[in-house]
Amino acid sequence: MTKKDRLIYLPLGGAGEIGMNCYVYGYGPAGKERLIIVDLGVTFPDMDSSPGVDLILADTGWLADNADRIEAIFITHAHEDHVGALALVWPDLKKPVYARKFTAAIAMMKMEEQGQPRDAVHIVQARPERVEAGPFEVQFVPVSHSIPESSALIIDTPAGRIVHTGDFKLDGSPVVGEPFDPEQWHGIAHEGDGVKVLVCDSTNVFVEHPGRSEATLAGPLSELIAAQEGMVVATTFASNVARLKTLAEAGRSAGRTVCLLGRAMKRMTSVAEETGVLSGFPGTVPPEEAAEVSRHKLMLIVTGSQGERRAASAQLSRGRYLGLEMKEGDSFLFSSKTIPGNERGVIRIMNAYSEMGVDVIDDHDGLYHVSGHANRPDLEAVHDLLRPKILLPMHGEHRHLREHVKLGIGKGIAAELAVNGMMVDLTGNEPDVVEYVDSGRTYLDGSVMIGAMDGVVRDRIRMALNGHVLATMITDEDDQPLGDAWVELMGLPETGRSGTKLSDGIEAELAEMLSDADDRLLRDDKKLEDAVRKIVRQVAMEEIGKKPEVTVVISRLLVE
Amino acid sequence: MTKKDRLIYLPLGGAGEIGMNCYVYGYGPAGKERLIIVDLGVTFPDMDSSPGVDLILADTGWLADNADRIEAIFITHAHEDHVGALALVWPDLKKPVYARKFTAAIAMMKMEEQGQPRDAVHIVQARPERVEAGPFEVQFVPVSHSIPESSALIIDTPAGRIVHTGDFKLDGSPVVGEPFDPEQWHGIAHEGDGVKVLVCDSTNVFVEHPGRSEATLAGPLSELIAAQEGMVVATTFASNVARLKTLAEAGRSAGRTVCLLGRAMKRMTSVAEETGVLSGFPGTVPPEEAAEVSRHKLMLIVTGSQGERRAASAQLSRGRYLGLEMKEGDSFLFSSKTIPGNERGVIRIMNAYSEMGVDVIDDHDGLYHVSGHANRPDLEAVHDLLRPKILLPMHGEHRHLREHVKLGIGKGIAAELAVNGMMVDLTGNEPDVVEYVDSGRTYLDGSVMIGAMDGVVRDRIRMALNGHVLATMITDEDDQPLGDAWVELMGLPETGRSGTKLSDGIEAELAEMLSDADDRLLRDDKKLEDAVRKIVRQVAMEEIGKKPEVTVVISRLLVE
Repeated sequence: MTKKDRLIYLPLGGAGEIGMNCYVYGYGPAGKERLIIVDLGVTFPDMDSSPGVDLILADTGWLADNADRIEAIFITHAHEDHVGALALVWPDLKKPVYARKFTAAIAMMKMEEQGQPRDAVHIVQARPERVEAGPFEVQFVPVSHSIPESSALIIDTPAGRIVHTGDFKLDGSPVVGEPFDPEQWHGIAHEGDGVKVLVCDSTNVFVEHPGRSEATLAGPLSELIAAQEGMVVATTFASNVARLKTLAEAGRSAGRTVCLLGRAMKRMTSVAEETGVLSGFPGTVPPEEAAEVSRHKLMLIVTGSQGERRAASAQLSRGRYLGLEMKEGDSFLFSSKTIPGNERGVIRIMNAYSEMGVDVIDDHDGLYHVSGHANRPDLEAVHDLLRPKILLPMHGEHRHLREHVKLGIGKGIAAELAVNGMMVDLTGNEPDVVEYVDSGRTYLDGSVMIGAMDGVVRDRIRMALNGHVLATMITDEDDQPLGDAWVELMGLPETGRSGTKLSDGIEAELAEMLSDADDRLLRDDKKLEDAVRKIVRQVAMEEIGKKPEVTVVISRLLVE
Repeated sequence: MTKKDRLIYLPLGGAGEIGMNCYVYGYGPAGKERLIIVDLGVTFPDMDSSPGVDLILADTGWLADNADRIEAIFITHAHEDHVGALALVWPDLKKPVYARKFTAAIAMMKMEEQGQPRDAVHIVQARPERVEAGPFEVQFVPVSHSIPESSALIIDTPAGRIVHTGDFKLDGSPVVGEPFDPEQWHGIAHEGDGVKVLVCDSTNVFVEHPGRSEATLAGPLSELIAAQEGMVVATTFASNVARLKTLAEAGRSAGRTVCLLGRAMKRMTSVAEETGVLSGFPGTVPPEEAAEVSRHKLMLIVTGSQGERRAASAQLSRGRYLGLEMKEGDSFLFSSKTIPGNERGVIRIMNAYSEMGVDVIDDHDGLYHVSGHANRPDLEAVHDLLRPKILLPMHGEHRHLREHVKLGIGKGIAAELAVNGMMVDLTGNEPDVVEYVDSGRTYLDGSVMIGAMDGVVRDRIRMALNGHVLATMITDEDDQPLGDAWVELMGLPETGRSGTKLSDGIEAELAEMLSDADDRLLRDDKKLEDAVRKIVRQVAMEEIGKKPEVTVVISRLLVE
């Protein structure tokens, strides 16, 4: 460590939102630090702010510009908000990727799907195995979460030890994977100079009670499923392999044949079995066999806990799906929490089932679902266990990060609220914000990447709110109107207040304007477009009380 | 009551959704029943299903077709989902409107705003005053809710007594308005033949604990506000006048000057004071005076508890508003529940405040908000109190109605799940579904009413998801292309995978297609449009992985 070297932290996604995780650490001379990336995740679009978009990624422009400084990419676990952008961004970075076996298997599949090399992904064993990446030495420490092999990272640097928790909870009996091991963490906290910086999950900082173990669900789920008379259908995240196992075991112990429905379900359990993280999963049957089983002897475990329109839960709520159908007397269990923003989709499914006479059971008492994240008392326990000098809350909306900072400061830890784009110098005993880097969002839209601020999505939202009028006109060799202007409407009522067709009304006003127009106006594309647009909007406002988006096309015939 | 007369119930809105309440009762010979309407409410649009729409109403086509049979319109209370459509629908019905004083005042304002006659609205006193409307005699019975003067209706008919609860809760100390009076309800249940039909609010049927009184909030709110050091800003529904009073009193007792912010706040409290339902509201100051008060001595009560973008809470979250500004150390209290579907907007505001250093306090422990609806044990208490022969759950999504039916059947009451459009014969001892009436939704879009199924909004959603391409071409007198086709994009990325402009790529393919086109294609508008659309979508799919909406305009120059 020379005098001028520094240790930096730069979140590019996930700090100020839940989802889209992307964190950078650097060590070296200012502006020339060698870098590692932790996680490359996505977040999901919605109609309010990103209609038509397929996926949302952190803007990795800064990473691409500094690709020559990047040593490696580490993935903490295989959730989409941590690994979903890897294969999309990798071509701009082309650096080795490190992950544990299950995570690596998912990452490799994603690389392959995008035509990128699988072998860029390297499998790492859990601590004590170390990965050297420039000035960094990184170890993967098993933590519990809601997917197999979630890991915290221990990042040793010449300036001290960083613990990057990834997503985690404290679970002494997680059903799948290693239980929380206070001994191991005590060791991590007391090796060498101990923990300098804790970069810590914040999503559940407002949840006051200690987190509950995955194992607490087995009893209530078994009782619930045993008590049902018709077919039982349960949904949860496909990646929550421990939950799938608990559900399937509860089904089997109630004498039911179990069938997994939805592509992701089968993919996740296969990868978990192939990579050895899952064993003893009860036997399941494919849908075509399930359709032959009498319904009181059948249990389906299906995708779509968030109400996704194309997932199995939504398909079943609309009728027959892969030969299976819900009926009166069946029950549907959400072994899941509705993520804020997904309520409408989930409620739509609940009501569709209600119409079928299906009993819907949700998690309102916490009996049938536990969170995968550390709650407030758990976060405090981790602070106490690791006693870091510096706390940097990550993975949370601004309000979560702020609350987590307060919690740390209350314990005498130097905590800093760093959101996406804020570069923090961690070299000294206090975090120091040294730079603001352009950060933001990139959209995968169809097969193309567009910037969130490019205006493309803004135009879509405008068309959705205001409708779209398209006005065309032709001028002759002398720039005189040839025939009348022509108007087409999209997303607008045909008839206005006057009772005449809106397009007729607009065309009549345009005809009048054009007949009065002087040559200066007629020759100037920009002015003529503005004049046409103004009339369209005026007539629309009078007739239908809306100002639509307007596209004007002027075709000028030239002398040949 | 002649042998052939029947008593019918027909929900047109609110039965299968929360909001948009509209219920019809009829009595007389089948198909010639004389009718009354209870409530004419709206519901609110969202980007997912109704972008650009201003308000959503029940389709009142059936009512308009049968206007000559309608005797009167009764409004139970002044919430938008009960009175919001009155002035919009009234011109098609033109029947007398009855409501209690406060509700009538709001209804009259709405009539006036829409240019309809105020004096169509008649003020009715609470029971024992009776309104005769054809074969019906109707009384308004005060119930507690979250707005002044909410009323249940007692509808006496030759076939027996109906109790239509409206929205209600059981509150012995509602702060504003009359407390729940078991004596009065006992009387209603035991007059004459008792209650034949209970038509009952269902929104909170899944809430297991008994409802809490509005009065329980005064203590916790006073303590909370007294403990704050900076400015305190609280939000709740403007129509919840009791809550406004409790909040304002808590502010005053903490030595704070109180200011109401947002048009609806002032309107509701003025109407409540003018109509005598509210008295003793603490003095408030206008915003310009509030701006002069030091912030630890100031409390704002503001609109926008649901995160509405234009309400005061959102305005303050974006910066200075009417001379007032939130700062670090201030607190913002949601004395409200987030209605499902509004989470994103509310969370957006919470995070904006977090960025300002403002502490956000919400209702996660129920200390600072109580619901205005009867919970499950309260519904059971009402069943027990009224002992109706027939139960018709209303105002709820399908799942709420279904659960409420189960609750009634469990008590030995003949309960029927009737959703919008189902006409139920109530003449006998059991409800009997006799007809299905076309029901649905009408949108107020700008100043025009459009049917939800007209395709207008569907086109907007498509443009939002897929973008819009507009292709224009001109043909000469011989139907030969004159120049090249021209393409404009809206809501689509400019550049595709090949790196060339998407519009150039499409135009090149169109030029090629047109140069090869035979006369039969060129002369047929429909075929030519389809051919152009197909090419646009093909090229877009290749270049950007999306199939846009396409509007084709073919201008044919004619021999003059």
